[in-house]
Amino acid sequence: MVRLKKLSAALQSAAPDADAMLVTHPIDVRYLTGFTGSNAAVVLPLQHPDKKRKHSQLSKPMLFTDGRYIQQAKQETKHAGVVIAQGPILREACAAMVSAGVRRCAIDGEHTTVATLDAMRQWIPSKLRRSFFHPVPPLTAGLREVKDAEEIGQIRAAAQLGCRLFENLLTQIEPGKREVEIAAHLEFAARMAGADGMSFETIVASGPRSALPHGHATEQRMPRRGFVVLDFGVLLQGYCSDMTRTVHLGPATTAERDAYDAVLEAQLAAIAAVRPGVPCGQVDEAARSVLRGAELADFFTHSTGHGVGMEIHEGPRIAAKQEQTLKPGMVITIEPGIYLPGRFGIRIEDMVLVTRRGAKILTPATKAWIEL
Amino acid sequence: MVRLKKLSAALQSAAPDADAMLVTHPIDVRYLTGFTGSNAAVVLPLQHPDKKRKHSQLSKPMLFTDGRYIQQAKQETKHAGVVIAQGPILREACAAMVSAGVRRCAIDGEHTTVATLDAMRQWIPSKLRRSFFHPVPPLTAGLREVKDAEEIGQIRAAAQLGCRLFENLLTQIEPGKREVEIAAHLEFAARMAGADGMSFETIVASGPRSALPHGHATEQRMPRRGFVVLDFGVLLQGYCSDMTRTVHLGPATTAERDAYDAVLEAQLAAIAAVRPGVPCGQVDEAARSVLRGAELADFFTHSTGHGVGMEIHEGPRIAAKQEQTLKPGMVITIEPGIYLPGRFGIRIEDMVLVTRRGAKILTPATKAWIEL
Repeated sequence: MVRLKKLSAALQSAAPDADAMLVTHPIDVRYLTGFTGSNAAVVLPLQHPDKKRKHSQLSKPMLFTDGRYIQQAKQETKHAGVVIAQGPILREACAAMVSAGVRRCAIDGEHTTVATLDAMRQWIPSKLRRSFFHPVPPLTAGLREVKDAEEIGQIRAAAQLGCRLFENLLTQIEPGKREVEIAAHLEFAARMAGADGMSFETIVASGPRSALPHGHATEQRMPRRGFVVLDFGVLLQGYCSDMTRTVHLGPATTAERDAYDAVLEAQLAAIAAVRPGVPCGQVDEAARSVLRGAELADFFTHSTGHGVGMEIHEGPRIAAKQEQTLKPGMVITIEPGIYLPGRFGIRIEDMVLVTRRGAKILTPATKAWIEL
Repeated sequence: MVRLKKLSAALQSAAPDADAMLVTHPIDVRYLTGFTGSNAAVVLPLQHPDKKRKHSQLSKPMLFTDGRYIQQAKQETKHAGVVIAQGPILREACAAMVSAGVRRCAIDGEHTTVATLDAMRQWIPSKLRRSFFHPVPPLTAGLREVKDAEEIGQIRAAAQLGCRLFENLLTQIEPGKREVEIAAHLEFAARMAGADGMSFETIVASGPRSALPHGHATEQRMPRRGFVVLDFGVLLQGYCSDMTRTVHLGPATTAERDAYDAVLEAQLAAIAAVRPGVPCGQVDEAARSVLRGAELADFFTHSTGHGVGMEIHEGPRIAAKQEQTLKPGMVITIEPGIYLPGRFGIRIEDMVLVTRRGAKILTPATKAWIEL
């Protein structure tokens, strides 16, 4: 119940007049209740300390899902009752709230569409409709930014699997092989090792394609000489890993080698800047200033990193001017890169855990220069 | 430009007072312009036939994306100019519309969140803000329901790859093997054959787990006797395939065999009901009534099918009481199934193309009883 209680507390501060919160984002539903189905909503009732106000009659959180998940919902759901809806799940959730006396319901404005809100309003009696729904910031996503011990263990396991896969992957890379073959071998090994899948579309970008920051694996064959950017992650028991390494096929030019050293130095500087209380923008600046010194900052065209957990991109954003401060228990990526159009690209990425003493690297695969 | 022109026409009928439409759903952006990046928005200007009204100064569609996609946007985008935004792409899109004289902009209510709409409103000068954004139904998704010849070719290629993979998959299934191993081999073969990935998380549900309609592959080992439900799809050049076959390990009981025959009969009845002008609910009923006759309808706990194309779940919905009618060029799944909790489950699914003459099966892999 700890997560649901934290959500109640966050909600009481964000929307003190709400009687309930409706959670619809599947990842948030899973985080709060353990249910992994694709179509579900949780109604979390709130008790008002204010005695003058009548409480709603919902006594505990309720999970609404559909007939496909009868068995699965019973097996997985913790801390909430289960309702198998006959019609649209949100219609039944709305009806249950209204009949239990809820008069104001907080919703997550970032995970509720304009059309869904319009539809839900039609399911509320007209006299209550106007003030029934109250959009609030993504409170569950906010909670999820700081990982608990169980989550850190799961993320560590995913990250370690990623590192083992990388070592294995190095034996696959050779001139003439297609990028997709590298990806296929990686993904096969991930599955055989227990991953539920990849946490995002695998990037294998070789030769001049390495200058595409999001160069998904294609039919292109590895060159005799040039960089290969490998950016991939597994999904293991609901948690994502994310790491990037850049290796070189054949002998490198001085410019290539110098650029690699600059990116690595930038990455290490950003990791060194990680500490509780530090604004995220300061971590970004630590990487960016190293690349500025090397006259490469113009080619660093994205932000330094992002939170990672049940989703591959979560808060906080590690980007220029971000004032949000780091907290112990956050897990973030540190991934500066440079992209010289038509020539080459380099990116080096680790996942790090924010601890009281600073960053702890969760993806300890080597970042030393690798020439294959 | 055909797709953008069709969207203009749909918009002029849905929102005659709009000067422009903002398209933000990545799949819709890709459908309209070819751009495959994850962060993009298209502004489509509309010319008013009404001469009294001043036209906006936007002369052609514009695609807004970020610095990660400089090269890729140039390479991929057709029928639209490209703007690399320095800040949030929607802020730049809003600013461009306002300065070009747009005063009313249609947005897709199903793909715009409450929070995004609130943010965008803040980027519009206060005197224009109140009436600037006009939510409309998902018009591009509506266009996408009817596939053009190029799309049908791409979907056919994806479906055929799915069938080839299934034949190969049969050689992998044997008692004692883990479900995830089956999935791993399937996904490896898909990648090696050119798939960009799977169109959804592979379902390999064996023994009593076959009674879970969405039983993703787990560490469970195949039994000596029992059903194995295989539901999978590839993503090939932006288009999804989707098919399900159910095979049996070891000798089956009469009840199992009879149940299989009933599901197959239901599936064939639904396919036979497919024809332009037929309401989707009638196709669902064709499957459901066969299972009712076999006293199995209570175990058919989901709808009969869904549209499939660039997304794995698109319109139309093939479900009870759906009044939308089928049109030539729609591609839908027909996938009745029954799920007997704790005992077994069976599902048989094809993709079919709606033609003037009825359904054309795109996934011609055998549906005959297979005992391994």
